[in-house]
Amino acid sequence: MGVNGYGTIGKRVADAINAQPDMELIGVAKTQPNFEAHTAGERGYPMYAAIPERSPLFSEAGVDLAGEVDELVAKADVIVDCTPSGIGAENRELYETHHTPAIFQGGEDADVADVSFNARANFDAARDADYVRVVSCNTTGLSRIIAPLEAEYGVEKVRATLVRRGGDPGQNSRGPINDILPNPIKIPSHHGPDVKTIFPDLEIDTLGLKVPATLMHVHALNVTLEDDVTGAHVRQLLEGENRVYVIPEGMGIDGAGKLMDFALDAGRPRGDMWENCVWGESIGVNGRDLYLFQAIHQQSDVIPENVDAIRAMFDVEDQQTSMELTDQTLGIGI
Amino acid sequence: MGVNGYGTIGKRVADAINAQPDMELIGVAKTQPNFEAHTAGERGYPMYAAIPERSPLFSEAGVDLAGEVDELVAKADVIVDCTPSGIGAENRELYETHHTPAIFQGGEDADVADVSFNARANFDAARDADYVRVVSCNTTGLSRIIAPLEAEYGVEKVRATLVRRGGDPGQNSRGPINDILPNPIKIPSHHGPDVKTIFPDLEIDTLGLKVPATLMHVHALNVTLEDDVTGAHVRQLLEGENRVYVIPEGMGIDGAGKLMDFALDAGRPRGDMWENCVWGESIGVNGRDLYLFQAIHQQSDVIPENVDAIRAMFDVEDQQTSMELTDQTLGIGI
Amino acid sequence: MGVNGYGTIGKRVADAINAQPDMELIGVAKTQPNFEAHTAGERGYPMYAAIPERSPLFSEAGVDLAGEVDELVAKADVIVDCTPSGIGAENRELYETHHTPAIFQGGEDADVADVSFNARANFDAARDADYVRVVSCNTTGLSRIIAPLEAEYGVEKVRATLVRRGGDPGQNSRGPINDILPNPIKIPSHHGPDVKTIFPDLEIDTLGLKVPATLMHVHALNVTLEDDVTGAHVRQLLEGENRVYVIPEGMGIDGAGKLMDFALDAGRPRGDMWENCVWGESIGVNGRDLYLFQAIHQQSDVIPENVDAIRAMFDVEDQQTSMELTDQTLGIGI
Amino acid sequence: MGVNGYGTIGKRVADAINAQPDMELIGVAKTQPNFEAHTAGERGYPMYAAIPERSPLFSEAGVDLAGEVDELVAKADVIVDCTPSGIGAENRELYETHHTPAIFQGGEDADVADVSFNARANFDAARDADYVRVVSCNTTGLSRIIAPLEAEYGVEKVRATLVRRGGDPGQNSRGPINDILPNPIKIPSHHGPDVKTIFPDLEIDTLGLKVPATLMHVHALNVTLEDDVTGAHVRQLLEGENRVYVIPEGMGIDGAGKLMDFALDAGRPRGDMWENCVWGESIGVNGRDLYLFQAIHQQSDVIPENVDAIRAMFDVEDQQTSMELTDQTLGIGI
Ligand SMILES: NC(=O)c1ccc[n+]([C@@H]2O[C@H](COP(=O)([O-])OP(=O)(O)OC[C@H]3O[C@@H](n4cnc5c(N)ncnc54)[C@H](O)[C@@H]3O)[C@@H](O)[C@H]2O)c1
Ligand SMILES: NC(=O)c1ccc[n+]([C@@H]2O[C@H](COP(=O)([O-])OP(=O)(O)OC[C@H]3O[C@@H](n4cnc5c(N)ncnc54)[C@H](O)[C@@H]3O)[C@@H](O)[C@H]2O)c1
Ligand SMILES: NC(=O)c1ccc[n+]([C@@H]2O[C@H](COP(=O)([O-])OP(=O)(O)OC[C@H]3O[C@@H](n4cnc5c(N)ncnc54)[C@H](O)[C@@H]3O)[C@@H](O)[C@H]2O)c1
Ligand SMILES: NC(=O)c1ccc[n+]([C@@H]2O[C@H](COP(=O)([O-])OP(=O)(O)OC[C@H]3O[C@@H](n4cnc5c(N)ncnc54)[C@H](O)[C@@H]3O)[C@@H](O)[C@H]2O)c1
Repeated sequence: MGVNGYGTIGKRVADAINAQPDMELIGVAKTQPNFEAHTAGERGYPMYAAIPERSPLFSEAGVDLAGEVDELVAKADVIVDCTPSGIGAENRELYETHHTPAIFQGGEDADVADVSFNARANFDAARDADYVRVVSCNTTGLSRIIAPLEAEYGVEKVRATLVRRGGDPGQNSRGPINDILPNPIKIPSHHGPDVKTIFPDLEIDTLGLKVPATLMHVHALNVTLEDDVTGAHVRQLLEGENRVYVIPEGMGIDGAGKLMDFALDAGRPRGDMWENCVWGESIGVNGRDLYLFQAIHQQSDVIPENVDAIRAMFDVEDQQTSMELTDQTLGIGI
Repeated sequence: MGVNGYGTIGKRVADAINAQPDMELIGVAKTQPNFEAHTAGERGYPMYAAIPERSPLFSEAGVDLAGEVDELVAKADVIVDCTPSGIGAENRELYETHHTPAIFQGGEDADVADVSFNARANFDAARDADYVRVVSCNTTGLSRIIAPLEAEYGVEKVRATLVRRGGDPGQNSRGPINDILPNPIKIPSHHGPDVKTIFPDLEIDTLGLKVPATLMHVHALNVTLEDDVTGAHVRQLLEGENRVYVIPEGMGIDGAGKLMDFALDAGRPRGDMWENCVWGESIGVNGRDLYLFQAIHQQSDVIPENVDAIRAMFDVEDQQTSMELTDQTLGIGI
Repeated sequence: MGVNGYGTIGKRVADAINAQPDMELIGVAKTQPNFEAHTAGERGYPMYAAIPERSPLFSEAGVDLAGEVDELVAKADVIVDCTPSGIGAENRELYETHHTPAIFQGGEDADVADVSFNARANFDAARDADYVRVVSCNTTGLSRIIAPLEAEYGVEKVRATLVRRGGDPGQNSRGPINDILPNPIKIPSHHGPDVKTIFPDLEIDTLGLKVPATLMHVHALNVTLEDDVTGAHVRQLLEGENRVYVIPEGMGIDGAGKLMDFALDAGRPRGDMWENCVWGESIGVNGRDLYLFQAIHQQSDVIPENVDAIRAMFDVEDQQTSMELTDQTLGIGI
Repeated sequence: MGVNGYGTIGKRVADAINAQPDMELIGVAKTQPNFEAHTAGERGYPMYAAIPERSPLFSEAGVDLAGEVDELVAKADVIVDCTPSGIGAENRELYETHHTPAIFQGGEDADVADVSFNARANFDAARDADYVRVVSCNTTGLSRIIAPLEAEYGVEKVRATLVRRGGDPGQNSRGPINDILPNPIKIPSHHGPDVKTIFPDLEIDTLGLKVPATLMHVHALNVTLEDDVTGAHVRQLLEGENRVYVIPEGMGIDGAGKLMDFALDAGRPRGDMWENCVWGESIGVNGRDLYLFQAIHQQSDVIPENVDAIRAMFDVEDQQTSMELTDQTLGIGI
């Protein structure tokens, strides 16, 4: 497997692939020899120049190159494209030229690939597909909650307000500094249609905002179910999902900062929190209306999904086996 | 009229009363001679010591005192209590002792007063009441939207996510710095029941969050109406409300920062934005489900309500006359 | 006078010119009909299209145009260029073509003009100049402190750490959200040389940082004087400067948020704080080493300087008369 | 060894002690069974109730207790007190009662202990002391730079502006949200005298500020040396210090966010950055005046110092041996 685009998502995907018993990472493509290139070097990942003209920068910086991105694409059985949104679509031609199947990320439009993918919700849809898009961090987070609710109770309608972080911790040129931005201002937002790439028949309206925080997104979720339920029943259902962490009341975790502290304390690589984090105390039911708050670690929740997508594309494992293997090798499940 | 507690809300209430042709401000009570005391002095407001033992601090700071808070309460026909939440309830005894009617703010529990008040929604409920509570900035903001929707279409259910500012601009010890906090974590939040002090029969579920911003709250609002509507019709309805500003698309206003710039440019005192600010572009309808984003200037939206509450208590004007007079004297309506 | 570029600085310059008894504002040039255009319209400022192709946007938005920027330049005796940094330099040719003198802002390089200007420090240097650059908000703030210190005690060396706001309140796309950025990383920073355009012989080393705040810059200033002084003497000296506000201890003002509240309470247009705000309590002396903290309102401190620059260029008043007239008409001096 | 107070510092000290070949961690004392108690449990640290009355809370939460804090103090050869500032001083009596030597943290006043400690600067001062205070994160950061400069060139005077983070990532109730606070307003600040507990004869003036960021402090440092130097020479000197990381220009690290990303990528526990991070590009020299920017990870830079303090108190290793052992076991040095 090769990874093209070694940034926030790419470096995590590379590590995750590297941890799988049934996969081999043959290299990563990077645009510049910055600190991420150095740690990639220390992990022994063969490095390819994503932009050939920039190759000299790598040697100047003392970073060894194994070649250029074309070579990586030619050699790989599958490329996981983790370039910035929009670049992935441009790269598709390169992958086609080499007849190399590829996985794209959620920053790309749905039509970049044959199928949009979430392991919990539609694993089988990616079987034998050549081009698969792992949906965005927000859509992944929503899908993991909707799938079990749909299966257990039936979902009449979803209304979700997505309070999104303005940028990742290292993205210091992104704002806002002191504002709350309806974003997009138009309602319903594009997030709903994105969820429908996974659940085509779902009724869903989403509202997006952007705020001055970097750690996680927080979703304020309302799901009108087809049956009356109790909060306790829903809670038990979600506690049964390995990629959902229901935060117990006594943990003293009241926001994203403490969640990240918890992940770091637990010794997770990069402090990653691959699971949806649902506040147990927040699960509230009013008739058929279910409410909850969940925090989504935008930098890592899609990582296990990329691993499972590879297995689905090559039809090597069934859904449950793949997800369990991924979870076990990465350490997912609290 | 007297104002007890001359902080963020109190100083604005004092100015608003001072601007009314049918009201006279006889003094304000303050706990300490800080910068707000200085500007009160420049405006010629007689100042009373809220905490008698601290009187000497005022003279040391060169701020003249007209007396102590007891005297102000004794002299006033009505006191507007603008002390921090919780102190108002403690003060009620003082007002009762002097048989002085009083208005409390939304930081107090509903039972501090005989009635909770919003000028647009339940003006007449405060007629002849001795103790009235002007509801909080968030409840005021919700009430102004719900009232016309209820009257025009009927409201089946309200679901509101309140993305609240962490503190006012001058409150530099409040956080969070970099977090998104479900607050309260429990859903539905206490905000819904507070709205029901104004609309007792309303179905409403609210979700609260706190984020690192100081300028305005932003509400992500869903109202399931009793009839099918169009976005255009709702927009026209809201444009007809003088205390609601429907932001036109071409203004280039995409958040609270630019809204505050707009208010400052328009020459408003303290840059106050007394109106709910609804993004026109955000008004979206899906069947009977209406959605919109609105920004609420927490420091000022309750000010006209305090003025109207006085007129309601003394039964001197009807709702429409009072609201129009308030709006005209303060400059409300864009 | 005409103003080209009607944004944060331009709209304030326009108002300031409009308030002068000896100046007439004949128009402002804007690129788009956003909310700032609307308030300009309400103030009765004739509006010119800065970018001719965009003229239709104005009429579509119902904003009347008086013409295009060329006409404004041709008509005006002087243009104050308040376009974004870099655009001013491009505009110089336009002004030369029409033989219209111009004032540029501090975002331009020093060589855009014949002289860099600060009213307190080098008023006479701009006499009869055709092209003058009013130095940046930070350099203006430093110059106002250095000038009296230099005159009174002599300055051996200045070391200044500039903790700069990341963006203005309305600039919601600027960061950082949660970071402290050495910026520029290189020391000494370019700010020192900029101060030297005003004080050519000064020894000054500056260090710049950028932080997630929008209200004001804060300078941590060290000046090694040529004589031993006392803090009290320096304080008295600065209290004598009309464009410096020495914050008294008892005001309870401990940061930029409360300073802005104070300006808004005082009824200042747009809450502007044209004066350097020096914390009286911070003025500390250790031998010949003077230290102080000052807050600089980046949006407004250069405004009076632009007004004085016009008088200097046309040689109509001497320094003291001009500065006093500006201060009196705008309301500067606390 | 026992650790009393298992929060930000305490949990790191416990892990660091646990990693030493010549030390044994016999338990940690905690006040409540929150998420940190859970991870302590997973690491197998015996847990003691810091506040006896709260013991039942632990059993209710399913956390096993080994006893109460008195027992831990009685058993331990040394206690590292990591309670919130002020509590340490109160605890001293407890340690004296049991004749247990103790280490305090920098939040305590200097007189809580016999000696203030920094491994690089005054290791030997702690030999055989019963009560030692490891100085604060800021003082530790300054000491590590001053010690080699003093030894190599002699230091005439230090002027340091400390741009401090408002709170740690999990401390979501701390501000400011959008402000730059001179803090303390008084100059010189108390930080200078704190540095003098390590370097009694040093000339140092410090200025402190607080800003809305959580990741690291940033110091803008000026050191007037006794000799003329070159930037290259200073850089080489600092590159020779194992607890100082001189950030190379090509790494693309321009702030605290990317530094933290780098630490996380490198696989460091909790993403800790024990070293001072000095931007190589920032090292600037003007005559005898040296300038530089450094970032200090407040949560972790004092951790190795606590380990070394233990060895110094028990006189088991000399300075160099202890520091090398600490660095090697923790993984310090980039
Ligand atoms: N960061 C998130 O929160 C997040 C979450 C889920 C999905 N995604 C999606 O993942 C994708 C990657 O996002 P990211 O956050 O990792 O971005 P990033 O900017 O952190 O990383 C992208 C990397 O690609 C490199 N790159 C740029 N142009 C390239 C090219 N032409 N060829 C190869 N590499 C190139 C960049 O140098 C960088 O290292 C996007 O589609 C994004 O929408 C991001
Ligand atoms: N700030 C807002 O966003 C906002 C919005 C709507 C309603 N409210 C409500 O308005 C009330 C006042 O809030 P605020 O934001 O103006 O608070 P504030 O802290 O800005 O002002 C309160 C003032 O009361 C003074 N005070 C304290 N104790 C006092 C006492 N015993 N007697 C008299 N004065 C005393 C304080 O010194 C201060 O000047 C609260 O109930 C609050 O919940 C606040
Ligand atoms: N904002 C500050 O803090 C500050 C302080 C002091 C000096 N300055 C300097 O003042 C200047 C203006 O800055 P600002 O903050 O007001 O910027 P701004 O972006 O707020 O305003 C610039 C205005 O110029 C307009 N504009 C863009 N291109 C134009 C063109 N070709 N012709 C005419 N108008 C055009 C923009 O639409 C905008 O309205 C810059 O040089 C800046 O460095 C800014
Ligand atoms: N966080 C930093 O940035 C930092 C850096 C250097 C030094 N320090 C200093 O380290 C010390 C600890 O700070 P921290 O940031 O780890 O604080 P913290 O609040 O994260 O942790 C303190 C811990 O002590 C516990 N505690 C409270 N009262 C107690 C008691 N009576 N007995 C035992 N435990 C008690 C708390 O529950 C908490 O777990 C302070 O002196 C602080 O000034 C902190």
